Amino acid sequence: MVSVAIMGHGVVGSGVAEILLTHKQKLFASIGEEIYIKKVLDLREFPDSPIADRFTKDFEEIINDLEIRIVVEVMGGLHPAYEFVKRCLKAGKSVVTSNKELVAAYGAELLEIARVENVNFLFEASVGGGIPIIRPMNQCLVANIVDEVAGILNGTTNFILTKMIEDGMQFRDALRLAQELGFAERNPSADIEGHDACRKICILASMAFGKHVYPDMVHTEGITGITLEDVKYAEKFGCVIKLIGRVKKLKNGMIDIITAPMLVPFKSQLANIDNEFNGIMVRGDCTGDVVFYGKGAGKLPTASAVVADIVDCCTHLKQRRFLYWADGKGDNIINVNESEFAMYVRAKGKDVAVKAEALFGSIQSINTPGKRTAFTTGKMPYGEFIKKINKLSADGVEILSTIRIGDL
Amino acid sequence: MVSVAIMGHGVVGSGVAEILLTHKQKLFASIGEEIYIKKVLDLREFPDSPIADRFTKDFEEIINDLEIRIVVEVMGGLHPAYEFVKRCLKAGKSVVTSNKELVAAYGAELLEIARVENVNFLFEASVGGGIPIIRPMNQCLVANIVDEVAGILNGTTNFILTKMIEDGMQFRDALRLAQELGFAERNPSADIEGHDACRKICILASMAFGKHVYPDMVHTEGITGITLEDVKYAEKFGCVIKLIGRVKKLKNGMIDIITAPMLVPFKSQLANIDNEFNGIMVRGDCTGDVVFYGKGAGKLPTASAVVADIVDCCTHLKQRRFLYWADGKGDNIINVNESEFAMYVRAKGKDVAVKAEALFGSIQSINTPGKRTAFTTGKMPYGEFIKKINKLSADGVEILSTIRIGDL
Repeated sequence: MVSVAIMGHGVVGSGVAEILLTHKQKLFASIGEEIYIKKVLDLREFPDSPIADRFTKDFEEIINDLEIRIVVEVMGGLHPAYEFVKRCLKAGKSVVTSNKELVAAYGAELLEIARVENVNFLFEASVGGGIPIIRPMNQCLVANIVDEVAGILNGTTNFILTKMIEDGMQFRDALRLAQELGFAERNPSADIEGHDACRKICILASMAFGKHVYPDMVHTEGITGITLEDVKYAEKFGCVIKLIGRVKKLKNGMIDIITAPMLVPFKSQLANIDNEFNGIMVRGDCTGDVVFYGKGAGKLPTASAVVADIVDCCTHLKQRRFLYWADGKGDNIINVNESEFAMYVRAKGKDVAVKAEALFGSIQSINTPGKRTAFTTGKMPYGEFIKKINKLSADGVEILSTIRIGDL
Repeated sequence: MVSVAIMGHGVVGSGVAEILLTHKQKLFASIGEEIYIKKVLDLREFPDSPIADRFTKDFEEIINDLEIRIVVEVMGGLHPAYEFVKRCLKAGKSVVTSNKELVAAYGAELLEIARVENVNFLFEASVGGGIPIIRPMNQCLVANIVDEVAGILNGTTNFILTKMIEDGMQFRDALRLAQELGFAERNPSADIEGHDACRKICILASMAFGKHVYPDMVHTEGITGITLEDVKYAEKFGCVIKLIGRVKKLKNGMIDIITAPMLVPFKSQLANIDNEFNGIMVRGDCTGDVVFYGKGAGKLPTASAVVADIVDCCTHLKQRRFLYWADGKGDNIINVNESEFAMYVRAKGKDVAVKAEALFGSIQSINTPGKRTAFTTGKMPYGEFIKKINKLSADGVEILSTIRIGDL
């Protein structure tokens, strides 16, 4: 019997308890031992829970219980999650978390403590919810040198963009629908401004390239500025607009990482990932492109990923899983202005296409009545693009929007 | 240092050697030990290989070398692969294989020997080439009860069907192109008659449901009968034709397994998997649908999956990975006639739609000049469908083709 504690009994935490109880037999068959929920930490009361007698409001009861070998952190937020996880690892307990904010902010430090204490710190559920991605990337792709990771990492924004693309809804209406359906929170800023997707690409980049990438090192744009006009022009250029987290290894060993909306060509595997689904593409030197697709959030999908990590901890109580990256100072990350993209521009004015062609060279353009034009450029460093777009603006062209084009 | 032997130096075998040599540093960093190729078994000579001095033509040199803890079987075919693998396992060596024919034919027996000898028998590369599927299904989805697995499991047939769908090529021409490009073998029957896809769905079904499913227990149809007319009608019904291996758990605990071409709705995640790519959908009770996509074959993709298994063996020399299923007699598999599908029919004759509607109830039909009609039926047991289609035939309708419609 392996005793575990679950810190937090919210959506994911209650899902973890549910799976451990309802899938007891299957789990026992897999690992040959019972996983026993010894304590659940929550400040609220859950008198109707089948394990109501095991709830505690006091973290000390968990940290001081020597029988508890594995602690599950599903409280969310940075504090006190960080302090609790750190103390658990230092006390020789393995920790499993679904908390992407925690991993993105303190991953390197917590992995180092886990290494020193010879315990596991696992976080499969922190990226892609129920989609297996951390473990396959870490283990199955061990024989690959990863060149690029790109994904639709946030279900809320993908739902909103899908409604704009498929049903012609305005951004505000699509957001309201997402809130009504429970896909978006009342304060949706972490989602729609790209911070959630940024945390996830930071975790994947840290793992793929071995140095911690902190969210504030990453240029991040959300989808609040995307309009129906952009969606329609994108379609004419053979693309859909998706919020993409992407990291790419450059020839000089530096990495190029960004979170931003991008035009994704119809033929890309990421173009067909719709609604609240997530999809992650890993480009390896041996495998080529591998894509993982599924529900990126939700109670049971996320909880099942947490339980898979618990099982991995149970079967590796005496052996650490190799999952590690060093701290990073951001000196391996290129400046956003050096990052190369083909660009989409929507503008208004006289002779836009002619003026744009003079500045950008060969472009593809679509004119619509009312002196409105959309055009796409070739690849160039973002800083160069901004200089040219400023010239275009000085030349009397009103720039309505600019979006990167992903070569995904 | 962990010593390994590689049996077979063909496409996959030479790829395994190449990755072990070129990715030495990364592998060392991952497992903290060197993986050393001590022997390579092949009857041919490879004087230009950087490890030419380690080649042998004699299996006994491998079996009798106590330092060799892991043996890689990438010879292909059933014999002598089966005999060699069995002897290696019995000698206490872990075995990694990419040989789907071997796993589909002898998986249960070899897994049982591995269990008794407390060694590992791993075969990630046997399904989906470079796509991680065996390990994620086994580990990450341990917290799920799998309800269904369905996939495009053969790249050759998928390439042929894609050429028919996208370029309007006839089957024979597409096959010839596949052969010219090296996607199809000179004798393509294992691919185009569905046997290769069948072996793979057998492996996934055995793993998902715990009892070995042998290929001869599975109703298998290839794509040789698919015509351009079918491809075009399918499009009108909002579908593409794909060769699908599928296994589904029924409410009574039985399983429904089949390999056959199916009409796949455009909106399915499997519909957009084109050319030589593979895609596998796993439907779990907690995760919902998870899809894995990538190159299903090829030297380096397949070899990288083999190397991931070698690494797993290295880090678990003293501990067996849980991967096991019992032998099976097929008594958990329903008869193909009980298997329920909606059906597509292409036929020729007078008043086909009227006659079909009288037999099948509500149908969707498309008439084209020359008394040709295509229609789709609702779901029914296949045996019932065949009875009705025979009646239709007796009523003067010429049945040109029938294809299942997948609810994928």
